[in-house]
Amino acid sequence: MKKVAIIMGSDSDMPVVSKAFGKLDEYGVPYEVHVFSAHRTPAEAKEFTEKAEENGFGVIIAAAGMAAHLAGAIAANTTLPVIGIPVKSDTLGGMDALLSTVQMPTGIPVATVAVNGAGNAAILAVQILAVSDKDLSDKLKADRKANREKILAKNEKITAEYSRI
Amino acid sequence: MKKVAIIMGSDSDMPVVSKAFGKLDEYGVPYEVHVFSAHRTPAEAKEFTEKAEENGFGVIIAAAGMAAHLAGAIAANTTLPVIGIPVKSDTLGGMDALLSTVQMPTGIPVATVAVNGAGNAAILAVQILAVSDKDLSDKLKADRKANREKILAKNEKITAEYSRI
Amino acid sequence: MKKVAIIMGSDSDMPVVSKAFGKLDEYGVPYEVHVFSAHRTPAEAKEFTEKAEENGFGVIIAAAGMAAHLAGAIAANTTLPVIGIPVKSDTLGGMDALLSTVQMPTGIPVATVAVNGAGNAAILAVQILAVSDKDLSDKLKADRKANREKILAKNEKITAEYSRI
Amino acid sequence: MKKVAIIMGSDSDMPVVSKAFGKLDEYGVPYEVHVFSAHRTPAEAKEFTEKAEENGFGVIIAAAGMAAHLAGAIAANTTLPVIGIPVKSDTLGGMDALLSTVQMPTGIPVATVAVNGAGNAAILAVQILAVSDKDLSDKLKADRKANREKILAKNEKITAEYSRI
Amino acid sequence: MKKVAIIMGSDSDMPVVSKAFGKLDEYGVPYEVHVFSAHRTPAEAKEFTEKAEENGFGVIIAAAGMAAHLAGAIAANTTLPVIGIPVKSDTLGGMDALLSTVQMPTGIPVATVAVNGAGNAAILAVQILAVSDKDLSDKLKADRKANREKILAKNEKITAEYSRI
Amino acid sequence: MKKVAIIMGSDSDMPVVSKAFGKLDEYGVPYEVHVFSAHRTPAEAKEFTEKAEENGFGVIIAAAGMAAHLAGAIAANTTLPVIGIPVKSDTLGGMDALLSTVQMPTGIPVATVAVNGAGNAAILAVQILAVSDKDLSDKLKADRKANREKILAKNEKITAEYSRI
Amino acid sequence: MKKVAIIMGSDSDMPVVSKAFGKLDEYGVPYEVHVFSAHRTPAEAKEFTEKAEENGFGVIIAAAGMAAHLAGAIAANTTLPVIGIPVKSDTLGGMDALLSTVQMPTGIPVATVAVNGAGNAAILAVQILAVSDKDLSDKLKADRKANREKILAKNEKITAEYSRI
Amino acid sequence: MKKVAIIMGSDSDMPVVSKAFGKLDEYGVPYEVHVFSAHRTPAEAKEFTEKAEENGFGVIIAAAGMAAHLAGAIAANTTLPVIGIPVKSDTLGGMDALLSTVQMPTGIPVATVAVNGAGNAAILAVQILAVSDKDLSDKLKADRKANREKILAKNEKITAEYSRI
Repeated sequence: MKKVAIIMGSDSDMPVVSKAFGKLDEYGVPYEVHVFSAHRTPAEAKEFTEKAEENGFGVIIAAAGMAAHLAGAIAANTTLPVIGIPVKSDTLGGMDALLSTVQMPTGIPVATVAVNGAGNAAILAVQILAVSDKDLSDKLKADRKANREKILAKNEKITAEYSRI
Repeated sequence: MKKVAIIMGSDSDMPVVSKAFGKLDEYGVPYEVHVFSAHRTPAEAKEFTEKAEENGFGVIIAAAGMAAHLAGAIAANTTLPVIGIPVKSDTLGGMDALLSTVQMPTGIPVATVAVNGAGNAAILAVQILAVSDKDLSDKLKADRKANREKILAKNEKITAEYSRI
Repeated sequence: MKKVAIIMGSDSDMPVVSKAFGKLDEYGVPYEVHVFSAHRTPAEAKEFTEKAEENGFGVIIAAAGMAAHLAGAIAANTTLPVIGIPVKSDTLGGMDALLSTVQMPTGIPVATVAVNGAGNAAILAVQILAVSDKDLSDKLKADRKANREKILAKNEKITAEYSRI
Repeated sequence: MKKVAIIMGSDSDMPVVSKAFGKLDEYGVPYEVHVFSAHRTPAEAKEFTEKAEENGFGVIIAAAGMAAHLAGAIAANTTLPVIGIPVKSDTLGGMDALLSTVQMPTGIPVATVAVNGAGNAAILAVQILAVSDKDLSDKLKADRKANREKILAKNEKITAEYSRI
Repeated sequence: MKKVAIIMGSDSDMPVVSKAFGKLDEYGVPYEVHVFSAHRTPAEAKEFTEKAEENGFGVIIAAAGMAAHLAGAIAANTTLPVIGIPVKSDTLGGMDALLSTVQMPTGIPVATVAVNGAGNAAILAVQILAVSDKDLSDKLKADRKANREKILAKNEKITAEYSRI
Repeated sequence: MKKVAIIMGSDSDMPVVSKAFGKLDEYGVPYEVHVFSAHRTPAEAKEFTEKAEENGFGVIIAAAGMAAHLAGAIAANTTLPVIGIPVKSDTLGGMDALLSTVQMPTGIPVATVAVNGAGNAAILAVQILAVSDKDLSDKLKADRKANREKILAKNEKITAEYSRI
Repeated sequence: MKKVAIIMGSDSDMPVVSKAFGKLDEYGVPYEVHVFSAHRTPAEAKEFTEKAEENGFGVIIAAAGMAAHLAGAIAANTTLPVIGIPVKSDTLGGMDALLSTVQMPTGIPVATVAVNGAGNAAILAVQILAVSDKDLSDKLKADRKANREKILAKNEKITAEYSRI
Repeated sequence: MKKVAIIMGSDSDMPVVSKAFGKLDEYGVPYEVHVFSAHRTPAEAKEFTEKAEENGFGVIIAAAGMAAHLAGAIAANTTLPVIGIPVKSDTLGGMDALLSTVQMPTGIPVATVAVNGAGNAAILAVQILAVSDKDLSDKLKADRKANREKILAKNEKITAEYSRI
């Protein structure tokens, strides 16, 4: 199975990004984790990315905050799909990272998820791999169903407890 | 080859969305175009989406403006990757569509591109299909190279014309 | 008397939404509480909504955060008035939920209240039912008067304590 | 049948607000149009509003731009449901009117629709009256169905014309 | 000497507004404090304001949060200068109150100060009274000079402690 | 009578600022117009401002766009009330000028009006002078009344023409 | 004299960026113009930048719109000062380019100027070179003086024409 | 070696600004620290700035919050490069300081860094001095290399610990 690369711009992004690890574990999708900075280790980020496809990666997830160039810089060096996670920092509420990640010029898309949305980045990566992998696709459907049932159970409990009719 | 579905929330989105058609034509990727509204034809949007996978679609692109729920509503009914294009409308500069498309809750990701970024939505769709299609992957690389050369040619011309050294 | 349905997108919205319960209790308006997700349990949300009118509901309140599609998705499946409560989440200060709730396209309105404004959502629901219910209308007027008197009492106390003339 | 009052803060709001007239005409709902300013004719706005209920109005629609206080000022003087239309002006893209209309303090809700959303304000007014008026409710359902069919027809045409499969 | 009226929209604004009291005490300017709500006690706010000039007030300060209509509603009922303090609330960082206070339509100005800027509201009130009061004007100049000296003293200390030359 | 100084940061602000001239003419208030830049002619701006009070000015109006420091820089050199007009420029919709003008630190208030709100700046200047000038105060009241009547006449006409009852 | 490199992300930025050329011509500072894209020609951008210092450049100006990574990507490959010009595009009013340019992580600063501020970018470049070049420094001072006089002349004309005293 | 001046608008900015001291210490660049306010001690700020060049300063760093005029006011009185640090305050998340610092009119640039970006301000100052100082330039390159190695070491550790392949 193709692997997922998870790259964060700084190890301070770990609390946000680590939510992606568990998701990929659930699906049994192998992943490799890296700390590369678009600005402080651009050469290594580039080298890793250029070889990502031949090294067996199918999707790359990149997470960064502030002027979040990482996902775009990664996307510039590969034609694999790149998923961007904008990370909220202390100022401006994450709007800086969101706009820096999503507003890419034509030619180099970044598949952007919500601010701090690492769980969804992992699921999106699985969805992309599942386009050609029936097992993964079945697991995604089963996961949806399980989620649905969890919410329906909560619904029943909350309806019973809080309604006044 | 798997097909791409392109769904827009209103036929007034056509001037933005149509930029995706040409891109997919360049790559020889088949696509089907629809006008479905998350709010005005939810049943048809749902029905199309639930059968999209078995009907041979690999990726769905959804474009909408304002409280842009279309991509999220589509994503709720399939585990195929869904790409969202926020469309700028007359008020608020597109910020409403961007936030409505990208800020999805965990479990149902939407791969969001830039406001009005239909060209990139198409390229991202191709990149996703190319994960398991070497021909498409080669075409993406060739396209990158061609783009690069176009810019380098412009660079040479502009350097010659405008530099004062 | 017609009932009010209160639907939240996630049980994590309970601290915000529960402020609506007490308000409806004060007015003696019956209500039923549900957890439905526009994205994770769309079928159940749809089913409940389509039967809401014949099941005796007069107004539906829907609360959700982030890309807050719930109120719009509910509104797409009923012609009952739907009140939307945008819920503030950890990022972007609630602006995402506000724009996703209020910026609905023509044809499917959502009566939007302030970010986290569950108390006002309940009062608005009562006002809507009161259009054809004189008792409720009288209670609303009495409540206004009581509120007014509470503020006037505070005014007197604060004027006396803090003025320097 | 109860009447709808449509109040605009300035006659310069007419191009936006007039979209509501046609909608109410379609439903055969009687309406009275006024220009009152929360700031320049507060006494008249207050007098009209205080008598609105006994004068046969069931809902009030208020439209204003900039620091859009009109809907809130109206809502302060009646317990009828008040619908607010934020009107976009030359600066700040309508964000000022939106926040001034929707962010009401607890006790005095304003049912806010999208920036410049006069059509939806009219439909919401009809939905509110329809809670106790089966004819109106049936017309709303018929209108939804007609809208749905119009979009489905467009969908068929666009699918046929633009798809490449 | 003319008095200053300080009106807040809710007693929860007291922690912000009370910074104005001390400032006015420093200048020996008499003031009267009120809690009036543009929405919950509009009649009392109006009555107080209409008589403010004949009751010896020269300036009115109004503080409110969210859809902060108070200053504008006050200004609609007097031709005295009205100073608006936008108060930050739990959501949207104070932007709602700022835009609701400052973006007044032509004819009814509100002299707006910074979000939570109660100290400056008091100083501005003194400056307005000082236009025709030489004593106040002299005190303002002395206060400026004192402030200047306080900062210069800090400057000397910090230059000595932190410079590395 | 005390004079009003009107200072703009650039002669390109004239189309916005000139709306203030007519207003002051209506009230018979004398004014002097200047182009001073906080950044390009700071010495002249300072010199004018420091002598403004002894030269017979009672209020200063300052208009500027972008990082609109002019009103604040003026206010730093006088204890006269300073009114700030944020001017909209080509980018960012006027938000930059608004925040640069209104968010002044404690000690140096700027009485800020709406973006491009030159008419209101003039009226506010008149209101400030009117605190100690009964004639001006009477004119302001007459102007309010005239405005009110103009709107009421429009109201009557529009009610007659557009209502459908 | 050291040269200035001016790099734009796309030749569509030329109308904005070209304002810098004339400014540098005025100061007699040599410059070289390039079109390099952080995303489409990252290798060439990197190569140029890494050799910029040894090739005689003293400052680099980089202009880009949307998710404006160019200045940051340049800055990652040199320790020369890099000046960033955020370029306004069709959506979001330039806020995306501004935040993407200015919010750089610690270690890799970008000296950011106003949205579309190409003239100031050129002047800042000259100021940086002037730190060790007395001639340039004198020219800057002369330019300031000339600007000042131009504004003072305008001031005199406008004061004479528009004041009413 | 030329000195760096670090000016903050208030001693409450010290926790943010002090991050710059350590950085300059690392590079052995001498600096002088001041508290000057654009509004409360404008004369002293002006006097210091006008003599800065002849007193041996090569760069000035200015930090301020809210309507952050300090950097612009400094820049108006010198042709030395001025670096602006927007400081986040309690309201509006730092957006006010950012726009007030960066949106300077043509003629008077401020080299703006990220909100609270004092570390980068120091590095940018060193980069500017390094244009004509080979030792500093070498230190900057060594620092970059050290940073790079620190990140690469973290990368190795994190890859080993978190990857699942």
